[in-house]
Amino acid sequence: MHDPANAFAERFTLPGAKTGPLAGLSFAAKDLFDVAGRVTGCGNPDWARTHAPAAETAPAVAAMLEAGATLTGKTHTDELAFSLLGINAHYGTPVNAAAPGRVPGGSSSGSAAAVAAGSVDTALGTDTGGSVRTPASFCGLYGIRTTHGRIPLAGVMPLAPGFDTIGWFARDAATFGRVGAAFGIACEAPLPDRLLLGVDVWAEADAAVAEALAPAVSRLQEIVAPARPARLAECPLDDWFAAFRTCQMAEIWAVHGAWIAAARPKFGPGVRERFAAAARITAEEAAAARQAKAEIRSRLTALLPPGTVCVLPASPAPAPLLNESEAALDRYRGRAMRILCAAGLGGLPQISIPGATVSGAPIGLSLLGGPGSEETLLALAKLLEDRR
Amino acid sequence: MHDPANAFAERFTLPGAKTGPLAGLSFAAKDLFDVAGRVTGCGNPDWARTHAPAAETAPAVAAMLEAGATLTGKTHTDELAFSLLGINAHYGTPVNAAAPGRVPGGSSSGSAAAVAAGSVDTALGTDTGGSVRTPASFCGLYGIRTTHGRIPLAGVMPLAPGFDTIGWFARDAATFGRVGAAFGIACEAPLPDRLLLGVDVWAEADAAVAEALAPAVSRLQEIVAPARPARLAECPLDDWFAAFRTCQMAEIWAVHGAWIAAARPKFGPGVRERFAAAARITAEEAAAARQAKAEIRSRLTALLPPGTVCVLPASPAPAPLLNESEAALDRYRGRAMRILCAAGLGGLPQISIPGATVSGAPIGLSLLGGPGSEETLLALAKLLEDRR
Repeated sequence: MHDPANAFAERFTLPGAKTGPLAGLSFAAKDLFDVAGRVTGCGNPDWARTHAPAAETAPAVAAMLEAGATLTGKTHTDELAFSLLGINAHYGTPVNAAAPGRVPGGSSSGSAAAVAAGSVDTALGTDTGGSVRTPASFCGLYGIRTTHGRIPLAGVMPLAPGFDTIGWFARDAATFGRVGAAFGIACEAPLPDRLLLGVDVWAEADAAVAEALAPAVSRLQEIVAPARPARLAECPLDDWFAAFRTCQMAEIWAVHGAWIAAARPKFGPGVRERFAAAARITAEEAAAARQAKAEIRSRLTALLPPGTVCVLPASPAPAPLLNESEAALDRYRGRAMRILCAAGLGGLPQISIPGATVSGAPIGLSLLGGPGSEETLLALAKLLEDRR
Repeated sequence: MHDPANAFAERFTLPGAKTGPLAGLSFAAKDLFDVAGRVTGCGNPDWARTHAPAAETAPAVAAMLEAGATLTGKTHTDELAFSLLGINAHYGTPVNAAAPGRVPGGSSSGSAAAVAAGSVDTALGTDTGGSVRTPASFCGLYGIRTTHGRIPLAGVMPLAPGFDTIGWFARDAATFGRVGAAFGIACEAPLPDRLLLGVDVWAEADAAVAEALAPAVSRLQEIVAPARPARLAECPLDDWFAAFRTCQMAEIWAVHGAWIAAARPKFGPGVRERFAAAARITAEEAAAARQAKAEIRSRLTALLPPGTVCVLPASPAPAPLLNESEAALDRYRGRAMRILCAAGLGGLPQISIPGATVSGAPIGLSLLGGPGSEETLLALAKLLEDRR
């Protein structure tokens, strides 16, 4: 089947229910989601080789089917979802239809690429550290990571269970909001009345990004309220990223260390080094980082009561160009993670919506809300599109 | 004469003109301003000892007198105006009436202390790196540094001529705006229609400062427009501070090096080390920093066309407590300078207005404008006070 975006790991058709809120929509699922009878490949050939076909379909996929959407395939992912840029040494880099010559973002790379190319109406992804928000930003799409624990992760390969969440992509706000119905998430809610502008996060983005996103921020302020400057962190964001990284890596090794030791999988550049780093986190480091995470979560929950949302850039700069050096990509990752890590640490929902164009490439505007505020975020995305 | 704030270096009375826009107001002048027949002490006993009485009164002081204000004395300053906190090892630290137990800020320390204590209606200061804005912020006052070159500095001890500016303090916005009349600066202007929020500068302030200033930012947005996030610098603000420091120190040594070598003055802690550092700046370092300054000035002028103002915190945190260690004070200075250096580098006017209280101490909200935008800044300060 035609797949010019190299988005799909496997194509097949599982028709959705005839009626339901998503009837008529097509969707794809990141190849981390189980579909009964098929091997869940997780972006790595050694994983596929050492795992049996799934016995059951992941409840999140089943929910989409029951809501009426038709599944048309599984999409490429960064290896074991442990990356942010969409580069897969084994299966190639999905094409970013919105920014030729640039990476699509990951790890939900194929899901974003498939939606951006128009191959499906929506696609499921997962977001542990930014794996839906980043490809949404890079590909000019709407993307959401949901509140930690809101959509059950059964039948989805875990990466770091204390951070993993399910999310989805769409090209327009109406479809974006509609998909929530599969998970009991409505696209309507009382509007927030308080808008924070997270100055420490904005300060991590390029000056050109802030300038380009400013008109979208103005439209948002017209809908919500004038923005209040706020620092998300009381410390440098580097410290938050360090806590994120240590917690995440400790969990990753706990989940995947035994398989890696047994199967000795081949990983691509960068991925290999990150798994090796994960193996080196000590119990003491992990305990300290977990304590920091708990304190950060309290702070963020207090900053974001119901009725408050925080506006942020989704990325520090447009998507890196294809074929940049691993060192340049690693620098980008560090900058991006200082922007992205708050949601993971706080277990919070966050969306990226098409915000602006910088150097000819899309860049997302992002909204971060308190726990369970998906309805508010989806409704705001819809209103913002309506007023464009 | 009673001076509980230890604000005055010398008290005397020079009556102002009977009529004029400032008739009825009393004022003091930082002891950097010449008054005919009196030694300008500049905060250092060795300076006073080695300089003759001034032959003429500084034009800025004469302008205040001609506008009707009565001069009631000269006020303490940090030594040769080369500090930011108001601590003077020779003459004591003026009292911060708004925050007992904390420094008043400097180097226009006595001028701020005299106004805060109610001893005068207004007072002249100078601002090279933050010497009006900082004591205004610390003492809960209105304070302005004017556009570089707008008010002639004849008869005022130079510190770094490429940065030195004249400014003043007041307790209320009406008096604050009225003083401008002495210098041909009206307190009325078309309101700006574009408000930038300098995210990189905000990110340097404590989280508690941003939170406390948020309501004042909201009032400002109601008057002007929803704020647009903007990075002042395309690089880390540390780089701007480095350019500021190098340029400033090179100029300081060019101006004062010969006197220091000849008179071997005693300086207090910190001041001594800063003059020694100034002596070490090489010609190459100074040339590179001047080049950086020129580029920063272009950028800031482009960011701040007529009709645009930028809202910032005036300080990163409330005034340091009295008797903090020199190391702690130096850390504070570094943080403050990253917030303050833009105006100096850009030659731009900036005001600090009473913004909020943090830990029981005042903290200023600041407005930065393009060259010659004093009228706009003063008018905005007035409107903000009216709507409080």
